[in-house]
Amino acid sequence: MTTRTTAELIEAALQHDARAVARLISLVEDHHPSAGEILATLFPRTGVAHVVGLTGAPGSGKSTLTDQLIRHVRSIGDEVGILAVDPSSPFTGGAILGDRIRMQDHIGDPGVYIRSMGSRGHLGGVAEATPKAIMILDAIGLPYVFVETVGVGQAEVEIVESADTTVVVVNPGWGDSVQANKAGLLEIGDIFVVNKADREGVAEAVRDLEQMLDLGAERAWRPPVLATVATTGEGIGSVWDAVQEHRDFLASTGRLIETRSARLRRELHRAVVAELLRRIEGAPEDDRFVTLAAEVGARRLDPWTAARRLLDGG
Amino acid sequence: MTTRTTAELIEAALQHDARAVARLISLVEDHHPSAGEILATLFPRTGVAHVVGLTGAPGSGKSTLTDQLIRHVRSIGDEVGILAVDPSSPFTGGAILGDRIRMQDHIGDPGVYIRSMGSRGHLGGVAEATPKAIMILDAIGLPYVFVETVGVGQAEVEIVESADTTVVVVNPGWGDSVQANKAGLLEIGDIFVVNKADREGVAEAVRDLEQMLDLGAERAWRPPVLATVATTGEGIGSVWDAVQEHRDFLASTGRLIETRSARLRRELHRAVVAELLRRIEGAPEDDRFVTLAAEVGARRLDPWTAARRLLDGG
Repeated sequence: MTTRTTAELIEAALQHDARAVARLISLVEDHHPSAGEILATLFPRTGVAHVVGLTGAPGSGKSTLTDQLIRHVRSIGDEVGILAVDPSSPFTGGAILGDRIRMQDHIGDPGVYIRSMGSRGHLGGVAEATPKAIMILDAIGLPYVFVETVGVGQAEVEIVESADTTVVVVNPGWGDSVQANKAGLLEIGDIFVVNKADREGVAEAVRDLEQMLDLGAERAWRPPVLATVATTGEGIGSVWDAVQEHRDFLASTGRLIETRSARLRRELHRAVVAELLRRIEGAPEDDRFVTLAAEVGARRLDPWTAARRLLDGG
Repeated sequence: MTTRTTAELIEAALQHDARAVARLISLVEDHHPSAGEILATLFPRTGVAHVVGLTGAPGSGKSTLTDQLIRHVRSIGDEVGILAVDPSSPFTGGAILGDRIRMQDHIGDPGVYIRSMGSRGHLGGVAEATPKAIMILDAIGLPYVFVETVGVGQAEVEIVESADTTVVVVNPGWGDSVQANKAGLLEIGDIFVVNKADREGVAEAVRDLEQMLDLGAERAWRPPVLATVATTGEGIGSVWDAVQEHRDFLASTGRLIETRSARLRRELHRAVVAELLRRIEGAPEDDRFVTLAAEVGARRLDPWTAARRLLDGG
């Protein structure tokens, strides 16, 4: 295997060489020295892909739904990138991994770019790496990028913020349990899908969601509530139609430009914080830090007052 | 209801007034202007409580186990503080909340201080607030503080780092599934509990864990593997004995001082980062930021290069 230069890798990725794409994402995720060049070269090509976030509780069938949406997009001849975001903890749900293994059906398909994103243990790992991976998939010219998250944890909610259209997956019966923070859920969804519609209680779940949407503040976009059976593919076409309608809504009202601009500004904020963190962690501890740390260690000074003193240089 | 001054609240909390304790935690969590005074006053009193972290996958019976440990500690006449850390996402497991509702049995008991910690949506919310809440419970003189986390997400793993002794709860059959990142799990546990020992497969689960511990690097503390039936209380006494043994081990080998000192240093690092974040977010965007943000918005410059330029002032 020959080693390719960064420029060669980028060139290959732009020609849709799947291995080159995967390699670029890894280099960026690992903060390889070439990461800066990769991002700087590809960023001007971004802003084309429509990014669809898919989220829902573990076991909701979200991955099966993603799988069916991939098939649907392929059947109409489009290419698609998929980022499957894993929680980073020692514990991950069996159902999640089980579902994801099913997504490997697409591995032989050159029009499908699947990437599993896992944090490498540092705070903000996934939240920091995912927007960069989206950017790479966008830059190579894919019309759609799906970001599937498990829907537990702050990092995942932040990733949903990277999506143009967010699909929230629930199941019949979800409304009866204490299972979901309904207000938070209603806030993030552009499209609601009641999956496992072959089970009892689907009509109630749809009605429940519709009622909650009625109670909420009036919005220019009223999220549709759709029923699917992801295992058979039933209802997938209407989910995809809803994605297209939401995209048209965003484009025609100027919101697409507006929210993407806000997102880039937020990304710049985050990049500043991440860069600061890296500089702080990489820097040798200076005398002042050592002195204050000793005071904290002796419990004479609390860490938070010490931090303020350190930053004030006082 | 009369409004108490911060000094009065602190005084009342030190007299074990549960409402005052809860109020102090809220003030600190909300970054109220009095938070600095509260932390600075109470911090010198900390370092007494033994902090026990309890973690495990949702549905493992971890909350029921915590509940039984509370009963056990109370039966031997000790007071205890409990922080139940919730994931911050719109989705939370029904089993988790269900279990937690059960913990409300202790609400009438003045020797039990239960607090549910939820992030308010900002990155690092729980990870930042939990060590402060532990500190408050420690400072008022409780001999034990339990921190129960759901075990999914980075924030929760970080919270485990605040514990002197970490109890990892698994179930029979966990080893067969793709359910757990075993290496990560083995790394964080000081005590392993196979809960639901009334089910089949308990002997296999214990053996599986023991074998994995045998394969790992040799450690001065060999984590015991215990079986419990949390719903009936079976085995709870031996879990508590193991906590005491681990505490004695930490104390007698000098590790307690060492790890707590390392923890305070880490806390200082985090406090610096959190304070920096707050300053960046609170600061008005200067001209340079606005100029670079416009470049990013036009996709002429990527956010990460822009961040480095901003910080380099170049």
